[in-house]
Amino acid sequence: MSLSKNKIRYIRSLEAKKHRKEEGVFLAEGPKLVGELLGHFPCRLLVATSEWLKDRPVLTDGIQEIIVASHEELSRASLLKTPQSVLALFEQPFLEVDTEAARRSLCLALDGVQDPGNLGTIVRLADWFGIEHIFCSLNTVDVYSPKTVQATMGGLARVKVCYTDLPTLLDSLEGVPVYGTFLDGGNMYNEVLSETGLIVMGNEGNGISAEVASRINRRIYVPTFPADRLAAESLNVAVATAVVCAEFRRQAVGR
Amino acid sequence: MSLSKNKIRYIRSLEAKKHRKEEGVFLAEGPKLVGELLGHFPCRLLVATSEWLKDRPVLTDGIQEIIVASHEELSRASLLKTPQSVLALFEQPFLEVDTEAARRSLCLALDGVQDPGNLGTIVRLADWFGIEHIFCSLNTVDVYSPKTVQATMGGLARVKVCYTDLPTLLDSLEGVPVYGTFLDGGNMYNEVLSETGLIVMGNEGNGISAEVASRINRRIYVPTFPADRLAAESLNVAVATAVVCAEFRRQAVGR
Repeated sequence: MSLSKNKIRYIRSLEAKKHRKEEGVFLAEGPKLVGELLGHFPCRLLVATSEWLKDRPVLTDGIQEIIVASHEELSRASLLKTPQSVLALFEQPFLEVDTEAARRSLCLALDGVQDPGNLGTIVRLADWFGIEHIFCSLNTVDVYSPKTVQATMGGLARVKVCYTDLPTLLDSLEGVPVYGTFLDGGNMYNEVLSETGLIVMGNEGNGISAEVASRINRRIYVPTFPADRLAAESLNVAVATAVVCAEFRRQAVGR
Repeated sequence: MSLSKNKIRYIRSLEAKKHRKEEGVFLAEGPKLVGELLGHFPCRLLVATSEWLKDRPVLTDGIQEIIVASHEELSRASLLKTPQSVLALFEQPFLEVDTEAARRSLCLALDGVQDPGNLGTIVRLADWFGIEHIFCSLNTVDVYSPKTVQATMGGLARVKVCYTDLPTLLDSLEGVPVYGTFLDGGNMYNEVLSETGLIVMGNEGNGISAEVASRINRRIYVPTFPADRLAAESLNVAVATAVVCAEFRRQAVGR
């Protein structure tokens, strides 16, 4: 069996959200990432070199279709600059919005994050910091975009990412601490940070939308160094998310 | 005056490191970034719409060449997905390696960071955390790559980034604390972190090279949450840099 032109065209078409949505699948590339996702998501199609396949008889159980391909064929299907020895199409999970998650645990909410790499990096760091739920506003970039999937480094297998109207979600969370970073927020190192609740992070250029900001009850700030340093204007959103999550977890452990 | 085909070709050629090096210039795009860099670096060429130019008579003093261009012309010269109303070519500064900087202040060293976006994000967060010197190994990606310049968000104007042989630099720093993150390092929250010295961050896939690792005298670790969580394997290098720098600065302020 080899990789047909039609299959290559089909795989590459999944760069577009419209096609991913119609097909209900997403693309992942590379031995490490594909290896992590197998077993977490039903696999519709796996394309790999014979070398990759021969050492993994068990892993490939239950895969709908397996195609042995040459490196050259794989590189024609690949969306990466450096094509790998395996790629796979997985089914997008149907995730119900767990509105109670923020009452039991620390969760993230993303309000209009636009860059696929940033979203993937956030999923990856959420995995590191044991955050299991990310609620994305409806205008946040698609987590199944190939660039995002690659940047999660497998975090997608453990972190539940779902899309919902954030104001409605926040309105349902009465009594839950909802954190957001603002230039006029309180220095987060001087705050007692909760072990449950929601941390909202905003859009790369515009921050948190007014509609969501009005529903935030704990305004915090990542201090610059020195604290009165005015030159630097902001942190990348994934970086800011990481610094905030790290501090929540540091305090929780120290308590 | 309008933007000639030759000029467009010249600007776009600066995507290649070879051409940037030969010309000694780098490209920056967008009103905010160009505005921040003007005044910090000699500007060889500025291309902007008449609207952008008319409000900035002072800013444009001393620029070698200014070309008024239409949006359409600018978009043909641009390397961005969303072309802006201004782009500029700046001279690359000649930065001597300040080998004593790590004795006076907290500095970063990057050992083989490969992704232009990661490097730019690190420059941006160094700016936020008041880190003025970044020493890059000779195999670290070029800080004047257009993607890196864009991701610095102007941090390049305040953070000195220079390239040097890291083992040689480290050998000259006897008595200076040299930190690096390792899976078997000490939990950084349990360490007393120094206010001066060097924090080494490694390559995206392979971490810190053996040559550099042997010269690190403080091995630290960013704990996962919970601490025994094994699933997530790593953090993105810019994210890890941020979490580490934030903790150094938190401790310095709290002292």
